[in-house]
Amino acid sequence: MTVVKFSEAEKTAIAEGRLRYLAHTNDLMVVVIDFTDGPQTEPDPPHSHPHEQITYVAEGELLFFIDGEPQKLSTGDLITVDGDVPHTIQLLSDKVRLVDTFNPIREEFLK
Amino acid sequence: MTVVKFSEAEKTAIAEGRLRYLAHTNDLMVVVIDFTDGPQTEPDPPHSHPHEQITYVAEGELLFFIDGEPQKLSTGDLITVDGDVPHTIQLLSDKVRLVDTFNPIREEFLK
Repeated sequence: MTVVKFSEAEKTAIAEGRLRYLAHTNDLMVVVIDFTDGPQTEPDPPHSHPHEQITYVAEGELLFFIDGEPQKLSTGDLITVDGDVPHTIQLLSDKVRLVDTFNPIREEFLK
Repeated sequence: MTVVKFSEAEKTAIAEGRLRYLAHTNDLMVVVIDFTDGPQTEPDPPHSHPHEQITYVAEGELLFFIDGEPQKLSTGDLITVDGDVPHTIQLLSDKVRLVDTFNPIREEFLK
């Protein structure tokens, strides 16, 4: 058992205005990302990874680009991303919090 | 890719005052549970499952019982649960939203 409290979590700046904290087990990882760099006028460059992903929108609004038409997502929505499928986001609100979950874990996030 | 929008999701009543919706890939499942039956005066009965779990607290306050001392959690906190470890919760606020993530998927939730 590991507890990661928001108030005490070590947060990693992954870009200007983007902070990440996370927890993981052997095969499951949850990554919380707080974006304060929205809204964006265009999407981030697309990326992909072999890991399966599900994203939960904890706060805010965004476009999620995957498999063609962008999906407009807001608080409470879920989207799944199969392995190796290119995807990206475009923030529509000032602040967005995403909860990204992965299997297997993103080893590169632990370095 | 699957999108599950909060506003349109099919929600399953798992108990009085507890509604669940979910999304999954092959090996990853995210289950959102909205509790409106808090606060509780005592915890739910403990349970366990072989699946690894990470819980993200999207709203509210609760006690998470695992490995001895209860952990007080609130919005933004994460807790990990290894497979086969007994655990349970006690809601401390009227409303709580938990985002439970699992590997492998909880097949029994799809029936």
